[in-house]
Amino acid sequence: MRLSLFLLPTLKESPAEAQIVSHRLSLRAGLVRQMSAGIYAWLALGFRVLKKIEQIVREEQDRAGCQEVLMPTVQSAELWQESGRYDDYGEEMLRFNDRHGREMLYGPTNEEMITDIFRQYVKSYRDLPKNLYQIQWKFRDEVRPRFGVMRGREFLMKDNYSFDLDFEGAKRSYENMYQTYLRTFARMGLTAIAVRADPGAIGGTLSQEFHILAETGESKVFYDAGLDSLGPEDVEAAQQLYACTEEKHDPAACTVPPDRLREARGIEVGHIFYFGTKYSKAMNVEVAGPNGESIVVEMGSYGIGISRLVGAIIEASHDEKGIVWPEPVAPFRVGLINLRSGDAACDKAADALYEKLNAAGIEVLYDDRDERSGVKFATMDLIGLPWQLVVGPRGVKNGVVELKRRAGGESEELSVESALARLVD
Amino acid sequence: MRLSLFLLPTLKESPAEAQIVSHRLSLRAGLVRQMSAGIYAWLALGFRVLKKIEQIVREEQDRAGCQEVLMPTVQSAELWQESGRYDDYGEEMLRFNDRHGREMLYGPTNEEMITDIFRQYVKSYRDLPKNLYQIQWKFRDEVRPRFGVMRGREFLMKDNYSFDLDFEGAKRSYENMYQTYLRTFARMGLTAIAVRADPGAIGGTLSQEFHILAETGESKVFYDAGLDSLGPEDVEAAQQLYACTEEKHDPAACTVPPDRLREARGIEVGHIFYFGTKYSKAMNVEVAGPNGESIVVEMGSYGIGISRLVGAIIEASHDEKGIVWPEPVAPFRVGLINLRSGDAACDKAADALYEKLNAAGIEVLYDDRDERSGVKFATMDLIGLPWQLVVGPRGVKNGVVELKRRAGGESEELSVESALARLVD
Repeated sequence: MRLSLFLLPTLKESPAEAQIVSHRLSLRAGLVRQMSAGIYAWLALGFRVLKKIEQIVREEQDRAGCQEVLMPTVQSAELWQESGRYDDYGEEMLRFNDRHGREMLYGPTNEEMITDIFRQYVKSYRDLPKNLYQIQWKFRDEVRPRFGVMRGREFLMKDNYSFDLDFEGAKRSYENMYQTYLRTFARMGLTAIAVRADPGAIGGTLSQEFHILAETGESKVFYDAGLDSLGPEDVEAAQQLYACTEEKHDPAACTVPPDRLREARGIEVGHIFYFGTKYSKAMNVEVAGPNGESIVVEMGSYGIGISRLVGAIIEASHDEKGIVWPEPVAPFRVGLINLRSGDAACDKAADALYEKLNAAGIEVLYDDRDERSGVKFATMDLIGLPWQLVVGPRGVKNGVVELKRRAGGESEELSVESALARLVD
Repeated sequence: MRLSLFLLPTLKESPAEAQIVSHRLSLRAGLVRQMSAGIYAWLALGFRVLKKIEQIVREEQDRAGCQEVLMPTVQSAELWQESGRYDDYGEEMLRFNDRHGREMLYGPTNEEMITDIFRQYVKSYRDLPKNLYQIQWKFRDEVRPRFGVMRGREFLMKDNYSFDLDFEGAKRSYENMYQTYLRTFARMGLTAIAVRADPGAIGGTLSQEFHILAETGESKVFYDAGLDSLGPEDVEAAQQLYACTEEKHDPAACTVPPDRLREARGIEVGHIFYFGTKYSKAMNVEVAGPNGESIVVEMGSYGIGISRLVGAIIEASHDEKGIVWPEPVAPFRVGLINLRSGDAACDKAADALYEKLNAAGIEVLYDDRDERSGVKFATMDLIGLPWQLVVGPRGVKNGVVELKRRAGGESEELSVESALARLVD
């Protein structure tokens, strides 16, 4: 993509309304634009990040044996009256009447709707377990939306629902998602810690929040150092280890030896939750067992905040110059800078390199604008593409380009062929 | 995907509420489920079709030089008051207040919002032309939603907006989309005719609807036979030829010789529209020209009904047994039928074939259920996958499988290797 054609409205100054770094950088880098309080449009660059995150989440859900569906954003109030949550939900639920006066709402979550779909179609124990998910926009009418896409009113979420015959099955589904979440966040280049959402209550270990670690994180988390060395497969071991947020952490009661107790800041980006028969009882969800008996199904739900992750990743990965995207979610892999647009030799060399990168299937944003080199470097550092390829007059004369890694700042002069070879790997 | 694990709630009988064939078949084949009047959930099979269509539309938009963005579904009323359409839009617009009493709405279309985004960022003639599009859910509160996803209230649409300096530029953008639409529909295996949306008015040729031809189509279209032989590149020639819907067709005034006048039935699936400075004037969208003068930008908008296309394609491609998906939009390419699940030899052969298809990257739905062969054939014919691969006891003995094309019904007995080779092509 040529930057001269791309809609990339970067800002030099931080907008006054942005209180946290991800909000500032997502506005300065032209990722999003606020259209109303807590409601954002995704501009071309931000949209690409959103899609990258969505696709990683999708691939890991599919790999875990889940099936993707898509529920509407507008729901009838009836299902929520049936579950008993319509009155409980309060003002965060955006409610309205359609032209015929029917009570409707913009779905803040989908337990009721998926339960309704399930009970219409699944009648036998032989059809279980089932795991259905969607990636869809939700709306929660927060009193004070803030922190940009980290806490928007309209937000993109992956929500997954499991249906099992018994607790043992539900626990397997839960652990399957636990593993899947760790894999998902690891693929995005993030370190995630699963903290107990309610460590006191019985069955409390079957409700965990995933926090990704970031110095600027919204909440403090305390966890056993043993978690640092465990992988997605070690569910059982991980569940034995201490991890909770500051609000739940009681230093007096915590039995982790001080030298093993880690303290860090985190941002919640996912939640997995076993809730048993809460909805299936309220909404009469039963399947026939092997002997014809009725079985009330066991359920769980599992969310990942996809639009929130855009902000969370920026919190976890930035420096004073701008965003530092982890490669798997970067909007483009390479930023190609022509240091002297208008100079025939530089234009020719940069255009040729651009063609080669495209031909090799490498996603590249080519700064072909008629701007000073300082502006081009600042733009590339701000938008944080993992690699910068710099074509300048001296290099062109010597047959080399500069390849620079955004994260560490290391740079090398290489022949065009060597630079390409490095990027193709 | 193994059918035993897949959520595919097929129906033997046609639901009474479904009046047209695409509605009947989309319910019978388990593509969608109605959640409220005109509001559908996309089940696993239907979701795959929706995504295939979306991806073809996206690739052709990108190829045409457009940039993808994503606007929120919830909009503030203010922008619509500025354009003057807030009061005009009537009851089709779903309106509500948020918890602070602000007037909001669920976007039925996005001219106002994209114009607002554009005017914030684009200030110079050098940044034009620009072509921005999104694929997003919209809501129109139809009085009587019907015909399934063909006329839903919540629907998925690709909407594209062009911004140009002058009429000549706007005309080029319009013609670019004209070509792109013909290519897009052709890639889905559809024949599309662009009819003049308002042939009488001045500039009327810069508003055209794309109808795909289907015997069961909702409206009658009349067109010059010359259109049958023109391709996407022949914009100029095509614009000279007669094409309009029955409402606009005046036999007395039509100058097409009777032997060249074609009559067919069509379904509207796209609309391209040049509207000049309507929104840019109302919303003060100006850029600086080469000499510093203010230029009011020329705009156009271009829509494709993505969820509607699922219904339209079924209308255009079905038979008495069910849907006949064109390959590019089929939810899976191959349906693998094990005629005798439970028979060790058949299971072994079918399982092995399933693995080979997956390894070759061929999307396959494997009917491994414990059902009679008649049920399995009927299911495959109903859901309309392009190819059926049948593994039965006799074939296993002779080392062959049956490969059958859903569209024509032709079948052949082939070795496993030959069948695979045929499908890999």
